[in-house]
Amino acid sequence: MDASSLFSIIEQVRTASPLVHNITNYVVMNNTANALLAAGASPVMAHAEEEVADMVGIASSLVINIGTLSPHWVRSMELAMTTAKNLGKPVVLDPVGAGATPYRNEVLAQLLAAAAPTVIRGNGSEIGATQNQAQKTKGVDSTAASHTAISAAQSLNQLLGSVVCISGEVDYVIQGDRVGEIHNGSAMMAKVTGMGCTATSLIGACLGVHEDAFEATMAAMSLIGVAGELAAKKAAGPGSLQLHLLDTLYTLSKEEFTATVRTTIQA
Amino acid sequence: MDASSLFSIIEQVRTASPLVHNITNYVVMNNTANALLAAGASPVMAHAEEEVADMVGIASSLVINIGTLSPHWVRSMELAMTTAKNLGKPVVLDPVGAGATPYRNEVLAQLLAAAAPTVIRGNGSEIGATQNQAQKTKGVDSTAASHTAISAAQSLNQLLGSVVCISGEVDYVIQGDRVGEIHNGSAMMAKVTGMGCTATSLIGACLGVHEDAFEATMAAMSLIGVAGELAAKKAAGPGSLQLHLLDTLYTLSKEEFTATVRTTIQA
Amino acid sequence: MDASSLFSIIEQVRTASPLVHNITNYVVMNNTANALLAAGASPVMAHAEEEVADMVGIASSLVINIGTLSPHWVRSMELAMTTAKNLGKPVVLDPVGAGATPYRNEVLAQLLAAAAPTVIRGNGSEIGATQNQAQKTKGVDSTAASHTAISAAQSLNQLLGSVVCISGEVDYVIQGDRVGEIHNGSAMMAKVTGMGCTATSLIGACLGVHEDAFEATMAAMSLIGVAGELAAKKAAGPGSLQLHLLDTLYTLSKEEFTATVRTTIQA
Repeated sequence: MDASSLFSIIEQVRTASPLVHNITNYVVMNNTANALLAAGASPVMAHAEEEVADMVGIASSLVINIGTLSPHWVRSMELAMTTAKNLGKPVVLDPVGAGATPYRNEVLAQLLAAAAPTVIRGNGSEIGATQNQAQKTKGVDSTAASHTAISAAQSLNQLLGSVVCISGEVDYVIQGDRVGEIHNGSAMMAKVTGMGCTATSLIGACLGVHEDAFEATMAAMSLIGVAGELAAKKAAGPGSLQLHLLDTLYTLSKEEFTATVRTTIQA
Repeated sequence: MDASSLFSIIEQVRTASPLVHNITNYVVMNNTANALLAAGASPVMAHAEEEVADMVGIASSLVINIGTLSPHWVRSMELAMTTAKNLGKPVVLDPVGAGATPYRNEVLAQLLAAAAPTVIRGNGSEIGATQNQAQKTKGVDSTAASHTAISAAQSLNQLLGSVVCISGEVDYVIQGDRVGEIHNGSAMMAKVTGMGCTATSLIGACLGVHEDAFEATMAAMSLIGVAGELAAKKAAGPGSLQLHLLDTLYTLSKEEFTATVRTTIQA
Repeated sequence: MDASSLFSIIEQVRTASPLVHNITNYVVMNNTANALLAAGASPVMAHAEEEVADMVGIASSLVINIGTLSPHWVRSMELAMTTAKNLGKPVVLDPVGAGATPYRNEVLAQLLAAAAPTVIRGNGSEIGATQNQAQKTKGVDSTAASHTAISAAQSLNQLLGSVVCISGEVDYVIQGDRVGEIHNGSAMMAKVTGMGCTATSLIGACLGVHEDAFEATMAAMSLIGVAGELAAKKAAGPGSLQLHLLDTLYTLSKEEFTATVRTTIQA
């Protein structure tokens, strides 16, 4: 995938404006809605058990984020995920804080058992913890070393079939033997809450317009990496970084994208 | 209503600082609280069934927004609306996403049956869907054409007595035969989440200081239209638009308002 | 405490990056998470009864904020506070809107009875209302005049042992006979939602790295006062104030802090 094919997915989001259904955490709802709008998608946040199935029915993709859990919300997440699976709609899961508490791990295991996500995106420790839960759930006794997040991601991909994205200084996108890398972004992005959650939502937007989940994930992670990197150059701190990120998602041209993006794919 | 009489309502908000009780959605709470503060009002967000009636009791007006519904919240909304009705306090309803799911429509019908809002504000499709629910609830078999949002708004006004505001490129404010139009704003405002919800909250602020609901709605919609238009001129994208909007709500002078506002009223 | 000893606590937050567990209100979650990140701390928001005890177990401090209450959340707050007490971890309570409704007062009395917070921070009327509830709960029949917030704070400190902070044009920090004063900040800060809640979270961050609660509170209130004052000088309104505050929390140097901070302590 060269810069041009990545950007064509970003452009499809702008022209098709997919409806992205988010069941996400309270902290980042505003940011992720704004990032989706700035990127050209159409966000909807809805979490009631009474309406999530209907909302999935009209959406192009589903984003599940477990940042601020509670039992009512978990039931809705599970229902939305199984509905999406039945309807053949793509789902991206963000296992925020996986491993932090037993409850979070149980919920994660429950959601993974309900429906394997199309894509899972987290930081290294979240992906490791998610792989642990998937392994327990699936009863797969992996003998593969999972010391690093990449091997955990590869195992998780094997267990569930999900494309797995590990975000960090370098972002990795894993599907089978394919390993994509995105070398963009800025260290200051870690000082703005919800940057990972925003990345996950943008994956949802790209999944809504592009069927190949590996490529959609590469496009979304390139977009936030490039936009964050350009925004950080103008920013005097994390407050202005958030503002410039939204502006850049909205204004980013193919020329700017192509001149900035740095990705590799090994197969 | 000339610019001067519109601005006098905006000034009353600044001097009286009405307490505006919001039961609104998670996505926009921060924005709407900030917009109310910047405009000079005093926002409070409270949703527990255990306290909404008491909070309505000390508030100047009530804002109900169904963006992120769930049964607990719906019970509180209904209780708050009936309390406001009994106390003779103004209520503005924002039927976010009306028509998107059956549950959302049922909730809307339930709320409209509990207490007719003083003002209803939505985009064209939300107003159309709200009119449908009101018609079902009220059992009125309208033969009037409701193909356009304006006729739906007029029908809704007839059914419930509520002033109805349709926001869009042009904002319409409907009461009986009176049709107010506001020709301000910027297309980029649609790329910031919660702009409609912010407009609704500002209607709540104006209702808190000015009894005539048509005039209060005209003032609030002029305020956000003018502030948004001035903010968009300084903005490099939706991130900076949100910032400049809050700054402009806070600093807007009578001179700037008068030089920018474009409204008409037909009776 | 001179500027240097205050700033050394601020620097400890940056180097130790304490995990601050927040059970806070929907309106300010994003702001407070961003302020904690900008100040160098590591925020986590988690409210499920199923996980709050575990989360307190791995956190350095707990922040409880009653801004948007409901029974589920109150149970989690109580559980988190008693867990923190049992584990000897510091707790800061923000009694948002204390006195506004009977329910809010009942919840407050219940939380204060469950575990005395290490620090309580509110505005004058919130501290007065909190002292009333503590007095009822504790059955202490104080004859001391509590007409002013300072005497209410001193009474509250006597009743519960908590350090009490009253924020306003001048911030007061009360412990026994010690009265600290911070003369920083800007009037425009009152026009940004959640500034008080942000101050409370920063107290949580400082409590996470510094055992003396009076000193930790002085440091946190100095930090937000100085950062807010410097940010206000660059701001054109409340929108840009919020942005510059986050940037300043992130970039603030010892030199800027020392040149700006104005505190006194009487013992």
